Amino acid sequence: MRGEFDLIAELFGPLAAKFPGALGLLDDGAIIRPRPDRDLVITKDLMVAGIHFAKDDPADAVARKLLRVNLSDLAAMGAEAIGYTLGFAAPPDIDIEWIRLFCRGLDQDQTIFDLSLIGGDTVQTSGPLTLSLTAFGDVPTGQALKRSNAQPGDKVMVSGTIGDGYLGLEVGHGMWPGISVEHRMYLIERLRIPEPRISLGISLRGIARGVADISDGLVADLGHICAASRTGAIVHADQVPLSSAALAIEAIEGPGLTSGLLSGGDDYELLFTIDPDDHARVSDLGKKCGVAIAEIGQIVNTEGVQVVDAGGQTIKLERSGYSHF
Amino acid sequence: MRGEFDLIAELFGPLAAKFPGALGLLDDGAIIRPRPDRDLVITKDLMVAGIHFAKDDPADAVARKLLRVNLSDLAAMGAEAIGYTLGFAAPPDIDIEWIRLFCRGLDQDQTIFDLSLIGGDTVQTSGPLTLSLTAFGDVPTGQALKRSNAQPGDKVMVSGTIGDGYLGLEVGHGMWPGISVEHRMYLIERLRIPEPRISLGISLRGIARGVADISDGLVADLGHICAASRTGAIVHADQVPLSSAALAIEAIEGPGLTSGLLSGGDDYELLFTIDPDDHARVSDLGKKCGVAIAEIGQIVNTEGVQVVDAGGQTIKLERSGYSHF
Repeated sequence: MRGEFDLIAELFGPLAAKFPGALGLLDDGAIIRPRPDRDLVITKDLMVAGIHFAKDDPADAVARKLLRVNLSDLAAMGAEAIGYTLGFAAPPDIDIEWIRLFCRGLDQDQTIFDLSLIGGDTVQTSGPLTLSLTAFGDVPTGQALKRSNAQPGDKVMVSGTIGDGYLGLEVGHGMWPGISVEHRMYLIERLRIPEPRISLGISLRGIARGVADISDGLVADLGHICAASRTGAIVHADQVPLSSAALAIEAIEGPGLTSGLLSGGDDYELLFTIDPDDHARVSDLGKKCGVAIAEIGQIVNTEGVQVVDAGGQTIKLERSGYSHF
Repeated sequence: MRGEFDLIAELFGPLAAKFPGALGLLDDGAIIRPRPDRDLVITKDLMVAGIHFAKDDPADAVARKLLRVNLSDLAAMGAEAIGYTLGFAAPPDIDIEWIRLFCRGLDQDQTIFDLSLIGGDTVQTSGPLTLSLTAFGDVPTGQALKRSNAQPGDKVMVSGTIGDGYLGLEVGHGMWPGISVEHRMYLIERLRIPEPRISLGISLRGIARGVADISDGLVADLGHICAASRTGAIVHADQVPLSSAALAIEAIEGPGLTSGLLSGGDDYELLFTIDPDDHARVSDLGKKCGVAIAEIGQIVNTEGVQVVDAGGQTIKLERSGYSHF
């Protein structure tokens, strides 16, 4: 019998070897021994072949993105990563070499982020490869960052640069062939291998108020913070930080690009609000964590997210964010 | 925008309303505050439409089975249920009424088993509906039951009756039309809505040694216990407890049925080994938990699982268990 157990043991087993509570993936479940005075944080993201990644995307990049989008969720809650479970629904003709490379990608990121596979389930599907990853982290009791704590008067801050994931997708589809190879590579890499802002998230405990990672798009995720906090927000489009690759494309495309940059999603930067008095402190944290932090707007009393240009005129976005369903 | 967030809020939201750490399903993750001196136990099971359930199976039964197969894994580790996350990859044409009924099934079992939805992810798929459930429970620190503690000389015990899930599947396909409607209903119900032995699992802490729930089939899962414990086992086929419905079919089919009963899977009974001195104590626990416990064999030093008939002759099984992959 070429069974589930053989496959798990052979390929996924080594990824769980260093975590005692994984029980070698041979038991009915896994065990996490919580650290004292810690809350456990749990996130889940699904990825489907042909929808969230292309069938010819490198398997190790698919694995790392799946892991990293979950780590980005942990970062948005200020959590440190512990481990993850993997659900793997595969078509019967899946290439075993593909799985091997997928595992290599997981292994690479397990080393970088110091976490372990702890359990999972492998089944057959008549549909496309479907991946379900549940990640576990922890925070000191009661210190998890949440979306719901933004307050009117807060400054809206963002880490890194915005819109690279969106541009990476467009460039991958052949848009803006005139940009440099370096810029193209950079954008595609940003889309494929996002950088979860784990250490920044940890540093923001006790400081940041409304927090989210940007997966659906800056405006949509700011909308989620506002909805959870019963506030609104103003975003100054000209203050949104752009990479030099994005600036190169903006030079070609003009202001029409703004809508895509602010609503394209797949940034996996942290979006958060702070008391204006904490501004200098937060900039210092960014330096400590090796990522730039920019102020892009304010939390206000009125409902909704309003995007304005340098002259204060409202910019109408074509869509507010990526719809998963 | 008819987005992920609307769907989650409308249909799945109420299932998470009573669990503060679910944060209304509106945040990047969920929070579990561990009880002091407890280990967290995590299980995961995937179900794919057309493979693990039929497209015309009632949605509430699908939901309850998905939840219960995970609760059965928690039971096998002696854990008490806390909550679960749900991954929901749905085709674009999924009937909203189907999801509504699915949620009703979850709601029903949340009440019965006192647990809550705490988070999840909803995405679109070009394939069949794919469900991924990760369940969380806890046990006193260090007391989780495991597969790996079976010892030569142990008695092999099983709860409830074996083979009903297998027979439910066959009867659903039109086999043995001569049996009574009551028996047919019973078998199909056993397949559709398994009964996780949560309270028995809790009672077995500190008593049972090698433990598993029977999902792949009695012989296969006993094989997993033996492999994890580096032992073997002998099963006396005539001592394996059968329901009156199974006995009715055995009366028609004869001893040829044994192979299917012992390897068919989907029983979700607890299979466990004990010190022979604990025999009376374990029978009492079964009475306390309202489920019969039967002795069906012994753990031995030699490798593998051997099934013997009343005369001590080895019975060769057609297959050792359900292969998930």
